[in-house]
Amino acid sequence: MAEQLEVNVNLTNQKVQFTGVSRSNPSITFDYDPPLGDGQGYTGLEMLLMSLAACSGTSIVALLRNMNKSISEFKVNGKGIRRTEHPTSFQKIFLEYTLNSKDVENKHIQEAIQLSEEKFCPVWAMVKNNVEVVTEYKIIAS
Amino acid sequence: MAEQLEVNVNLTNQKVQFTGVSRSNPSITFDYDPPLGDGQGYTGLEMLLMSLAACSGTSIVALLRNMNKSISEFKVNGKGIRRTEHPTSFQKIFLEYTLNSKDVENKHIQEAIQLSEEKFCPVWAMVKNNVEVVTEYKIIAS
Repeated sequence: MAEQLEVNVNLTNQKVQFTGVSRSNPSITFDYDPPLGDGQGYTGLEMLLMSLAACSGTSIVALLRNMNKSISEFKVNGKGIRRTEHPTSFQKIFLEYTLNSKDVENKHIQEAIQLSEEKFCPVWAMVKNNVEVVTEYKIIAS
Repeated sequence: MAEQLEVNVNLTNQKVQFTGVSRSNPSITFDYDPPLGDGQGYTGLEMLLMSLAACSGTSIVALLRNMNKSISEFKVNGKGIRRTEHPTSFQKIFLEYTLNSKDVENKHIQEAIQLSEEKFCPVWAMVKNNVEVVTEYKIIAS
Protein backbone atom coordinates (compact mmCIF):
# COMPACT_ATOMS: atom_id res chain seq x y z
CA MET A 1 0.00 0.00 0.00
CA ALA A 2 1.18 3.51 -0.79
CA GLU A 3 2.88 5.50 1.94
CA GLN A 4 0.56 8.44 1.24
CA LEU A 5 -3.20 8.12 0.98
CA GLU A 6 -5.34 10.91 -0.43
CA VAL A 7 -9.06 11.61 -0.34
CA ASN A 8 -11.26 14.43 -1.61
CA VAL A 9 -14.56 15.45 -0.11
CA ASN A 10 -16.82 18.16 -1.56
CA LEU A 11 -19.95 19.89 -0.29
CA THR A 12 -22.76 18.94 -2.69
CA ASN A 13 -25.89 20.67 -1.44
CA GLN A 14 -27.05 23.71 0.54
CA LYS A 15 -26.96 21.81 3.84
CA VAL A 16 -24.12 19.46 4.82
CA GLN A 17 -24.13 16.71 2.24
CA PHE A 18 -20.64 15.84 1.06
CA THR A 19 -19.42 13.50 -1.67
CA GLY A 20 -16.14 11.77 -1.03
CA VAL A 21 -13.81 9.76 -3.21
CA SER A 22 -10.35 8.22 -3.26
CA ARG A 23 -8.48 6.72 -6.22
CA SER A 24 -10.91 5.11 -8.69
CA ASN A 25 -13.38 3.94 -6.06
CA PRO A 26 -17.10 4.75 -6.35
CA SER A 27 -17.95 7.99 -4.57
CA ILE A 28 -19.57 7.96 -1.15
CA THR A 29 -22.30 10.27 0.09
CA PHE A 30 -22.00 11.73 3.57
CA ASP A 31 -24.79 13.59 5.34
CA TYR A 32 -25.92 14.41 8.84
CA ASP A 33 -29.25 13.97 10.62
CA PRO A 34 -31.94 16.67 10.35
CA PRO A 35 -32.16 19.53 10.96
CA LEU A 36 -28.47 20.08 10.14
CA GLY A 37 -28.63 17.77 7.13
CA ASP A 38 -31.18 15.55 5.41
CA GLY A 39 -29.89 12.22 6.76
CA GLN A 40 -29.22 11.05 3.18
CA GLY A 41 -25.80 9.50 3.59
CA TYR A 42 -23.21 8.15 5.98
CA THR A 43 -22.04 10.23 8.91
CA GLY A 44 -18.31 10.58 9.46
CA LEU A 45 -18.45 8.75 12.78
CA GLU A 46 -20.45 5.89 11.29
CA MET A 47 -17.81 5.59 8.58
CA LEU A 48 -15.03 5.50 11.17
CA LEU A 49 -16.80 2.54 12.81
CA MET A 50 -17.09 0.81 9.46
CA SER A 51 -13.45 1.44 8.68
CA LEU A 52 -12.48 -0.20 12.01
CA ALA A 53 -14.76 -3.19 11.32
CA ALA A 54 -13.35 -3.66 7.81
CA CYS A 55 -9.71 -3.09 8.78
CA SER A 56 -9.81 -5.46 11.74
CA GLY A 57 -11.75 -8.04 9.71
CA THR A 58 -9.18 -7.87 6.90
CA SER A 59 -6.24 -8.48 9.20
CA ILE A 60 -7.99 -11.24 11.17
CA VAL A 61 -8.89 -13.12 7.97
CA ALA A 62 -5.32 -12.75 6.69
CA LEU A 63 -3.85 -13.92 10.02
CA LEU A 64 -6.11 -16.98 10.17
CA ARG A 65 -5.16 -17.94 6.61
CA ASN A 66 -1.50 -17.57 7.57
CA MET A 67 -2.23 -20.21 10.21
CA ASN A 68 -3.50 -22.40 7.32
CA LYS A 69 -7.08 -22.16 8.53
CA SER A 70 -10.03 -22.18 6.16
CA ILE A 71 -12.79 -19.58 6.34
CA SER A 72 -15.98 -20.04 4.38
CA GLU A 73 -17.81 -17.06 5.89
CA PHE A 74 -16.69 -14.06 7.91
CA LYS A 75 -18.84 -11.23 9.24
CA VAL A 76 -18.23 -8.26 11.48
CA ASN A 77 -20.96 -6.47 13.39
CA GLY A 78 -19.83 -3.16 14.85
CA LYS A 79 -21.71 -1.10 17.40
CA GLY A 80 -20.57 2.21 18.82
CA ILE A 81 -22.05 3.96 21.84
CA ARG A 82 -21.71 7.74 21.60
CA ARG A 83 -21.15 10.27 24.31
CA THR A 84 -24.14 12.52 24.82
CA GLU A 85 -22.06 15.71 25.07
CA HIS A 86 -19.68 17.26 22.51
CA PRO A 87 -17.54 15.81 21.13
CA THR A 88 -20.09 13.03 20.61
CA SER A 89 -17.42 10.45 19.87
CA PHE A 90 -17.63 6.80 20.87
CA GLN A 91 -17.13 5.95 24.49
CA LYS A 92 -17.33 2.23 23.72
CA ILE A 93 -17.17 0.10 20.59
CA PHE A 94 -18.32 -3.52 20.31
CA LEU A 95 -16.95 -5.65 17.50
CA GLU A 96 -18.48 -9.08 17.00
CA TYR A 97 -16.81 -11.46 14.55
CA THR A 98 -18.81 -14.41 13.22
CA LEU A 99 -16.94 -16.96 11.17
CA ASN A 100 -17.76 -20.22 9.54
CA SER A 101 -14.79 -22.56 9.61
CA LYS A 102 -14.15 -26.25 10.03
CA ASP A 103 -10.72 -25.83 11.63
CA VAL A 104 -10.53 -22.48 13.47
CA GLU A 105 -10.50 -23.03 17.24
CA ASN A 106 -10.96 -20.49 20.00
CA LYS A 107 -7.20 -20.05 20.48
CA HIS A 108 -6.68 -19.21 16.80
CA ILE A 109 -9.32 -16.51 16.57
CA GLN A 110 -8.28 -15.09 19.95
CA GLU A 111 -4.68 -14.81 18.78
CA ALA A 112 -5.73 -13.24 15.47
CA ILE A 113 -7.90 -10.64 17.23
CA GLN A 114 -5.08 -9.79 19.61
CA LEU A 115 -2.52 -9.41 16.81
CA SER A 116 -4.95 -7.27 14.82
CA GLU A 117 -5.42 -4.93 17.77
CA GLU A 118 -1.77 -4.73 18.76
CA LYS A 119 0.01 -4.78 15.44
CA PHE A 120 -1.77 -5.28 12.13
CA CYS A 121 -4.87 -3.09 12.00
CA PRO A 122 -3.79 0.54 11.44
CA VAL A 123 -7.29 1.90 12.12
CA TRP A 124 -7.29 0.25 15.54
CA ALA A 125 -3.94 1.92 16.24
CA MET A 126 -5.46 5.29 15.28
CA VAL A 127 -8.17 5.11 17.97
CA LYS A 128 -6.07 3.43 20.65
CA ASN A 129 -6.54 4.83 24.18
CA ASN A 130 -9.37 7.07 22.96
CA VAL A 131 -12.09 4.44 23.16
CA GLU A 132 -12.71 1.09 24.81
CA VAL A 133 -13.05 -1.64 22.19
CA VAL A 134 -14.78 -4.83 23.31
CA THR A 135 -14.49 -7.86 21.02
CA GLU A 136 -16.55 -11.03 20.81
CA TYR A 137 -16.58 -13.91 18.35
CA LYS A 138 -18.71 -16.83 17.28
CA ILE A 139 -17.37 -19.81 15.39
CA ILE A 140 -19.86 -21.75 13.29
CA ALA A 141 -18.55 -25.11 12.12
CA SER A 142 -20.62 -26.40 9.24
CA MET B 1 -28.11 11.40 15.87
CA ALA B 2 -28.70 8.10 17.61
CA GLU B 3 -26.65 7.26 20.66
CA GLN B 4 -25.76 3.91 19.15
CA LEU B 5 -24.45 3.45 15.65
CA GLU B 6 -24.28 0.06 13.98
CA VAL B 7 -22.48 -1.26 10.91
CA ASN B 8 -22.18 -4.66 9.27
CA VAL B 9 -19.25 -5.79 7.17
CA ASN B 10 -19.09 -9.16 5.39
CA LEU B 11 -16.33 -10.98 3.54
CA THR B 12 -17.42 -11.23 -0.09
CA ASN B 13 -14.68 -13.09 -1.95
CA GLN B 14 -11.88 -15.63 -1.39
CA LYS B 15 -9.34 -12.92 -0.60
CA VAL B 16 -10.09 -9.92 1.65
CA GLN B 17 -12.87 -8.03 -0.09
CA PHE B 18 -15.55 -6.91 2.33
CA THR B 19 -18.91 -5.25 1.76
CA GLY B 20 -20.05 -2.84 4.43
CA VAL B 21 -23.34 -1.12 5.13
CA SER B 22 -25.13 0.93 7.74
CA ARG B 23 -28.83 1.86 7.87
CA SER B 24 -30.27 2.28 4.37
CA ASN B 25 -27.08 3.67 2.83
CA PRO B 26 -25.60 2.16 -0.34
CA SER B 27 -23.10 -0.57 0.46
CA ILE B 28 -19.37 0.12 0.29
CA THR B 29 -16.68 -2.22 -1.03
CA PHE B 30 -13.47 -2.57 0.94
CA ASP B 31 -10.39 -4.34 -0.36
CA TYR B 32 -6.65 -4.37 0.15
CA ASP B 33 -3.74 -4.05 -2.27
CA PRO B 34 -2.35 -7.15 -4.01
CA PRO B 35 -1.20 -9.73 -3.19
CA LEU B 36 -3.41 -9.82 -0.06
CA GLY B 37 -6.43 -8.50 -1.96
CA ASP B 38 -7.25 -7.31 -5.47
CA GLY B 39 -7.19 -3.57 -4.75
CA GLN B 40 -10.86 -3.32 -5.80
CA GLY B 41 -12.23 -1.14 -3.04
CA TYR B 42 -11.45 1.26 -0.23
CA THR B 43 -8.99 0.30 2.47
CA GLY B 44 -10.03 0.78 6.08
CA LEU B 45 -7.36 3.40 6.68
CA GLU B 46 -8.33 5.33 3.57
CA MET B 47 -11.90 5.34 4.82
CA LEU B 48 -10.82 6.63 8.22
CA LEU B 49 -9.13 9.56 6.46
CA MET B 50 -12.29 10.22 4.46
CA SER B 51 -14.42 10.07 7.59
CA LEU B 52 -12.18 12.70 9.23
CA ALA B 53 -12.34 14.93 6.14
CA ALA B 54 -16.15 14.67 5.94
CA CYS B 55 -16.72 15.03 9.68
CA SER B 56 -14.49 18.08 10.05
CA GLY B 57 -15.93 19.62 6.87
CA THR B 58 -19.48 19.14 8.15
CA SER B 59 -18.80 20.86 11.46
CA ILE B 60 -16.80 23.70 9.87
CA VAL B 61 -19.58 24.44 7.36
CA ALA B 62 -22.17 24.37 10.17
CA LEU B 63 -20.07 26.64 12.38
CA LEU B 64 -19.50 29.19 9.59
CA ARG B 65 -23.24 29.28 8.85
CA ASN B 66 -23.88 29.84 12.56
CA MET B 67 -21.70 32.94 12.16
CA ASN B 68 -24.10 33.96 9.36
CA LYS B 69 -21.46 33.44 6.71
CA SER B 70 -22.30 32.30 3.21
CA ILE B 71 -20.51 29.41 1.53
CA SER B 72 -20.95 28.73 -2.16
CA GLU B 73 -18.30 26.02 -2.40
CA PHE B 74 -16.46 23.93 0.17
CA LYS B 75 -13.87 21.23 -0.48
CA VAL B 76 -11.61 19.15 1.72
CA ASN B 77 -8.45 17.49 0.51
CA GLY B 78 -7.05 14.97 2.97
CA LYS B 79 -3.62 13.38 2.81
CA GLY B 80 -2.26 10.86 5.27
CA ILE B 81 1.37 9.77 5.56
CA ARG B 82 1.67 6.20 6.80
CA ARG B 83 4.29 4.64 9.01
CA THR B 84 6.42 2.11 7.17
CA GLU B 85 6.30 -0.47 9.98
CA HIS B 86 3.31 -2.20 11.56
CA PRO B 87 0.90 -0.84 12.54
CA THR B 88 1.04 1.20 9.33
CA SER B 89 -1.21 3.91 10.71
CA PHE B 90 -0.88 7.60 9.89
CA GLN B 91 1.98 9.50 11.45
CA LYS B 92 0.70 12.74 9.98
CA ILE B 93 -2.52 13.93 8.36
CA PHE B 94 -2.90 17.07 6.24
CA LEU B 95 -6.37 18.56 5.82
CA GLU B 96 -6.76 21.39 3.33
CA TYR B 97 -10.06 23.26 3.26
CA THR B 98 -10.91 25.33 0.19
CA LEU B 99 -13.98 27.50 0.37
CA ASN B 100 -15.65 30.00 -1.85
CA SER B 101 -17.27 32.77 0.16
CA LYS B 102 -17.80 36.48 -0.12
CA ASP B 103 -17.78 37.12 3.62
CA VAL B 104 -15.66 34.49 5.39
CA GLU B 105 -12.43 36.04 6.67
CA ASN B 106 -9.32 34.30 8.01
CA LYS B 107 -10.43 34.71 11.62
CA HIS B 108 -13.78 32.99 10.94
CA ILE B 109 -12.36 29.89 9.26
CA GLN B 110 -9.57 29.69 11.84
CA GLU B 111 -12.10 29.73 14.66
CA ALA B 112 -14.30 27.15 12.94
CA ILE B 113 -11.35 24.80 12.37
CA GLN B 114 -10.30 25.15 16.00
CA LEU B 115 -13.82 24.48 17.31
CA SER B 116 -14.16 21.48 15.01
CA GLU B 117 -10.92 19.99 16.33
CA GLU B 118 -11.57 20.72 19.99
CA LYS B 119 -15.29 20.18 20.33
CA PHE B 120 -17.55 19.43 17.38
CA CYS B 121 -15.95 16.78 15.19
CA PRO B 122 -16.26 13.40 16.93
CA VAL B 123 -13.93 11.67 14.45
CA TRP B 124 -11.19 14.17 15.28
CA ALA B 125 -11.70 13.37 18.96
CA MET B 126 -11.30 9.65 18.18
CA VAL B 127 -7.78 10.08 16.74
CA LYS B 128 -6.61 12.77 19.14
CA ASN B 129 -3.03 12.34 20.41
CA ASN B 130 -2.51 9.39 18.08
CA VAL B 131 -1.62 11.45 15.02
CA GLU B 132 -0.50 14.95 14.16
CA VAL B 133 -3.17 16.74 12.13
CA VAL B 134 -2.00 19.76 10.13
CA THR B 135 -4.69 22.04 8.71
CA GLU B 136 -4.55 24.62 5.94
CA TYR B 137 -7.22 26.64 4.21
CA LYS B 138 -7.78 28.74 1.10
CA ILE B 139 -10.56 31.28 0.79
CA ILE B 140 -11.68 32.10 -2.75
CA ALA B 141 -13.87 35.18 -2.93
CA SER B 142 -15.75 35.24 -6.20
